[in-house]
Amino acid sequence: MSLSDRGASRRGFLGGALTGAAGAALVAGTRAEATPLAADAEPFFGPHQAGIATPAQLHTYFAAFDLTTETRADLARLFQAWTEAAARLTLGRSVPGDGSGAPFDTADVAGLSPSRLTITFGFGPGLFVKDGKDRYGLAARRPAAFVDLPMFKGDQLIPERTGGDLSVQACADDAQVAFHAVRELARLADGIAQLRWSQTGFVGAFQPGETPRNLMGFKDGTRNPAATDAPVMQEHIWVGPEGGDWMVGGSYLVARPARISLEHWDRMKLAFQEQSMGRRKMSGAPIGKSNETDTPDFEATDADGNPVIAETAHIRLAAREQNNGAQMLRRSYSYNNGLSFVAERWPPWRQGMAFDAGLLFVCYQRDPRRAFIPMFDRMSRFDMMNQFVTHIGGGLFACPGGIRKGEFLGQRLLAA
Amino acid sequence: MSLSDRGASRRGFLGGALTGAAGAALVAGTRAEATPLAADAEPFFGPHQAGIATPAQLHTYFAAFDLTTETRADLARLFQAWTEAAARLTLGRSVPGDGSGAPFDTADVAGLSPSRLTITFGFGPGLFVKDGKDRYGLAARRPAAFVDLPMFKGDQLIPERTGGDLSVQACADDAQVAFHAVRELARLADGIAQLRWSQTGFVGAFQPGETPRNLMGFKDGTRNPAATDAPVMQEHIWVGPEGGDWMVGGSYLVARPARISLEHWDRMKLAFQEQSMGRRKMSGAPIGKSNETDTPDFEATDADGNPVIAETAHIRLAAREQNNGAQMLRRSYSYNNGLSFVAERWPPWRQGMAFDAGLLFVCYQRDPRRAFIPMFDRMSRFDMMNQFVTHIGGGLFACPGGIRKGEFLGQRLLAA
Repeated sequence: MSLSDRGASRRGFLGGALTGAAGAALVAGTRAEATPLAADAEPFFGPHQAGIATPAQLHTYFAAFDLTTETRADLARLFQAWTEAAARLTLGRSVPGDGSGAPFDTADVAGLSPSRLTITFGFGPGLFVKDGKDRYGLAARRPAAFVDLPMFKGDQLIPERTGGDLSVQACADDAQVAFHAVRELARLADGIAQLRWSQTGFVGAFQPGETPRNLMGFKDGTRNPAATDAPVMQEHIWVGPEGGDWMVGGSYLVARPARISLEHWDRMKLAFQEQSMGRRKMSGAPIGKSNETDTPDFEATDADGNPVIAETAHIRLAAREQNNGAQMLRRSYSYNNGLSFVAERWPPWRQGMAFDAGLLFVCYQRDPRRAFIPMFDRMSRFDMMNQFVTHIGGGLFACPGGIRKGEFLGQRLLAA
Repeated sequence: MSLSDRGASRRGFLGGALTGAAGAALVAGTRAEATPLAADAEPFFGPHQAGIATPAQLHTYFAAFDLTTETRADLARLFQAWTEAAARLTLGRSVPGDGSGAPFDTADVAGLSPSRLTITFGFGPGLFVKDGKDRYGLAARRPAAFVDLPMFKGDQLIPERTGGDLSVQACADDAQVAFHAVRELARLADGIAQLRWSQTGFVGAFQPGETPRNLMGFKDGTRNPAATDAPVMQEHIWVGPEGGDWMVGGSYLVARPARISLEHWDRMKLAFQEQSMGRRKMSGAPIGKSNETDTPDFEATDADGNPVIAETAHIRLAAREQNNGAQMLRRSYSYNNGLSFVAERWPPWRQGMAFDAGLLFVCYQRDPRRAFIPMFDRMSRFDMMNQFVTHIGGGLFACPGGIRKGEFLGQRLLAA
């Protein structure tokens, strides 16, 4: 009798626990499969991977893996197992065992709802070429847009928190559900891939329709394209035929943990913070405007002829108007890793433990050569925020198009 | 105009943002004070500190501080500021500025509800004696029960994650609200105390009345005393007159991050996991019983005369029946700090990144000499779980009795 017989759902497990029939639910089998879907389950299969256009959940667990296998057959095995598991996990079901009688699913989410879990997979450059070697015969299928990220000004990338051959981002309204998903997928990868780096993230439970605030206290994401705006999403976020059939409907993901010197930022006057951002802190309005959603006027000048929104203001450098119309879909989370020792490089020059916290910057786009790379290249040189924000890791990942029922992750790529 | 004029509440801030009247709400003053209390605010003042008997929230941020001041007057200033701020924060209000016109509150929770925020303060041994020195003239008032924690078998305490002169535990249903509270309190401590270590924690949103599962997949807290059971709470959890007037209604807190080798645990067979715990995984029933809440039978033996619940089972060693009737209130959270490199000391002897995750073990008791210390002394020697669980830091803190309106944290101690 296994904890994770096919078909036993989390609710099946729970039923057994509640009735006291220890183990009875473990063989519930197809009965649980027939249970109506939970109201808070996000569909896994579809034209796009879930977790990109999906309204942001409250928690994330992002993980990057290194591939340790040398064979394409192992890749297919892994992607099949991940697909099957992800489809179950997002429905709130457990991950089946291997039939040996040993439990597979860790069961720490038994009794929890799907919690809007999404699992978004990405391929790193190492799937195509690593150390100059075409390990899996896939180098020729690497899309032109899937370039290596350049080193940006000010980057302080920690090797142990950078790169990865595969990415898995689990997002859910419950922190435990998000962690559980990655934990199960990591176990399924045994012998084929291993965890390289990971990062938890959260966002406050702001009211529906309200733009969430990040740890700097400003609203973050005001000018994001609406995920419901199909023409904009198709033009700017979803990859078309140019990436090869396996990338159609996919997107390129930049995920970079950016540490914020919160203690330093918190000592700045309100007016300075607002000039740095180019927005008012409380309302979120662009400077010179009244409402959060007002379009910033980057041409406006004050009586002395100085720009109302500074040349080095964050929103100017990020704006589509200043970036040849490029747009990307930001879907960032705050992170909080506790404390680490810092010798401050600013007054009052304090030495001691400082918050190891910031933003897990996450954005999706159709072509990073048009969006993140040129945009962040300028920001990395000029953004006033750079005094407070340091990118410390991460990478660029190609997230394939959505997975159809009966298909597995990357199948169209591996079949080539 | 300050972000944090007295009386401007988070809802006041939000109102300004929503109406587009940037800054208008910043001087809302007493208007916001008159706003009815949010439904999800926990009372700060009372006979006991909140966050002990309070039903556990979904998130925690635990922080320990080192005192850097040499004067008792600074202590009083800090505790006054912390009391005033905590009373406001738990109502969802912002922390006032110092009148200089600079913002104080970081505003990252503007628009969020109180989220059942509680802030629980504790005093470490260093408040009384540090490095043999009675820094604040309080050594004589250290309660007899407030001993130094011994070094337990298997302890692998990291100095940077151990100890502290003061503890602050913020718990809330929103991760951002919990972090914000500690961040504001840390800022108020500037020049008097500084952060030493901290740890985030979470618990899944299990159904009401259901015992939550920790990362080992087992229900955690089944035999906890009911916080509503006044006689048990008074006998085992709340300190009486024996601790001095400042500790009446208080409790001693043990907070210790315990790393769990999840990869190792997850490879164990179900039957072994259950023997280690002494309970069934899914139902939570003690071995030999049917229901989670059944009292374990520690005398029962099988046909061969072996105990049904192993001598080394976790629940036997933790049980009040085996510990002279001692009880403590456990209020632990899971934690997830990402990954760190581990060379496994068990098959398959893998080397690589492993989950830096586990349990932020938290318990409250009237006298640690009767509860945690003897109980954990035995567990540290015999518990089968020790193969998987390693305490890596933490400490013992004296949490004073509840704060009355008009009084400040520790006032009765400092007034001596």
